[in-house]
Amino acid sequence: MIVVTNIHDMQQKMNQFRLQGKTIGFVPTMGYLHEGHVALLNEARKQNDIVVLSIFVNPLQFGPNEDFDRYPRDMKRDEAIAKEAGVHVLFYPDVAEMYPHPLSIKTVVTERVDVLCGKSRPGHFDGVVTVLMKLFNIVMPHRAYFGMKDAQQVAVVDGLIRDFNFPIELIPVPTVREEDGLAKSSRNVYLSEAERKEAPALYGALQRAKAAIEEGERSPNAIQNLVIDYIKTHTHADIDYVEIYSYPELKPIEELSGKVIIAVAVRFTNARLIDNITLDVE
Amino acid sequence: MIVVTNIHDMQQKMNQFRLQGKTIGFVPTMGYLHEGHVALLNEARKQNDIVVLSIFVNPLQFGPNEDFDRYPRDMKRDEAIAKEAGVHVLFYPDVAEMYPHPLSIKTVVTERVDVLCGKSRPGHFDGVVTVLMKLFNIVMPHRAYFGMKDAQQVAVVDGLIRDFNFPIELIPVPTVREEDGLAKSSRNVYLSEAERKEAPALYGALQRAKAAIEEGERSPNAIQNLVIDYIKTHTHADIDYVEIYSYPELKPIEELSGKVIIAVAVRFTNARLIDNITLDVE
Repeated sequence: MIVVTNIHDMQQKMNQFRLQGKTIGFVPTMGYLHEGHVALLNEARKQNDIVVLSIFVNPLQFGPNEDFDRYPRDMKRDEAIAKEAGVHVLFYPDVAEMYPHPLSIKTVVTERVDVLCGKSRPGHFDGVVTVLMKLFNIVMPHRAYFGMKDAQQVAVVDGLIRDFNFPIELIPVPTVREEDGLAKSSRNVYLSEAERKEAPALYGALQRAKAAIEEGERSPNAIQNLVIDYIKTHTHADIDYVEIYSYPELKPIEELSGKVIIAVAVRFTNARLIDNITLDVE
Repeated sequence: MIVVTNIHDMQQKMNQFRLQGKTIGFVPTMGYLHEGHVALLNEARKQNDIVVLSIFVNPLQFGPNEDFDRYPRDMKRDEAIAKEAGVHVLFYPDVAEMYPHPLSIKTVVTERVDVLCGKSRPGHFDGVVTVLMKLFNIVMPHRAYFGMKDAQQVAVVDGLIRDFNFPIELIPVPTVREEDGLAKSSRNVYLSEAERKEAPALYGALQRAKAAIEEGERSPNAIQNLVIDYIKTHTHADIDYVEIYSYPELKPIEELSGKVIIAVAVRFTNARLIDNITLDVE
């Protein structure tokens, strides 16, 4: 595994791989790697000759009151995990390398963002799209891997690749979970011991919703209430949202039908957790 | 020369060239080719193995009261000129191919645009940047060629490539002129016979300004007045602007020094013409 911190070096390196006819799989991350990231890397390794991992905590996608400074970082541990996962190139630029001067062009995501996390994190996906445009042009991958835990991010990246014709295949990878069902996340470390015991109730609620739909429930409202009640009964978390939409369009629906997403976000004392399931409803 | 109308075919073709180690020079145009475009193609042919020309009249860069429908089109003539100029691949998509659905992401150019043409054409460069992002991802060139006649466009594209790390070298090409000095443009066909005779006065005014600077004039105001007077005296055109800035930053200056641009835009009956010179002032 080589570690590259410079954009120009990275582009030269990637050009060489392309000239050799190698396929390139890319996993963009903010580091503090966990099994969710490893699942993305495993997929990338299966499908490509070269696996590229980027680690960059992107200030543009954090709001003014969000946890950019507090976001956990551990490069030594990340390097070990990356090597173990078969990464060939680790791209690890600093903020001055990625944003050496104010941008002359602003990207504004106008669809699929006024719901779910986009609603409570204004500008978040604008920052995600900006850094991904840069990373796509730096890494020039054939395939890019994103976890379905951030289902809205997958929908936005799908729009980015489609609208601007990036020659990249988007590969969504299923959410990796702890044994008790809690979705893996860098932010789980902020949970108190008691909160950590309650947190699997998010997935529990989603599984209850799934069961109800399989038993014939077709009302989004009924499912929403079921999920809210379950979380309220089983946790001390504040519910940020419980929402149900068509997927990946993220449009409100009158009745459950076709591909839908049920998504939740809650706040514990020091951590905001999200989870979702997507379902094909007959 | 092959003509490609489909984005997917184009990306496959360009990928093949890249895998063969060929370098790709790209000239994006709106067609109705003239010697200005041919100069770009000649440069591209000198510096690259493969020359790609795109012809696409981009609706996004026209304002609601601008001449999108009236913009001249002549594909047969363009094809002949392209072949003669040594173009290998002509990319000629229609609007439905380039914009099959509303974009989910808007690009807003925030620097270098509140002056010159950007000021009188709000949103114009947002449309230019959107289509160029798409074309860059479709053609995947090593070098892209733009004429200095649209000096502001060159400045904006410089920002685009720099900010989003497109692995593309921007090559600005000097303005090509008629024998009497008039800058070549698709819009020159809209001039009446009398207006065509007056139009070289734009370049005449810029040459007078250059001479005055060489004789020691350092006041932007004095140069601006000189250019305005000259155009008013020699044409019936309405002056849209005569502006002087640092280049490529396009910032106002107190005194002529360093690299500067003197740019003019005027309106004749059925055509708006622009011209400029850039100078290194000691």
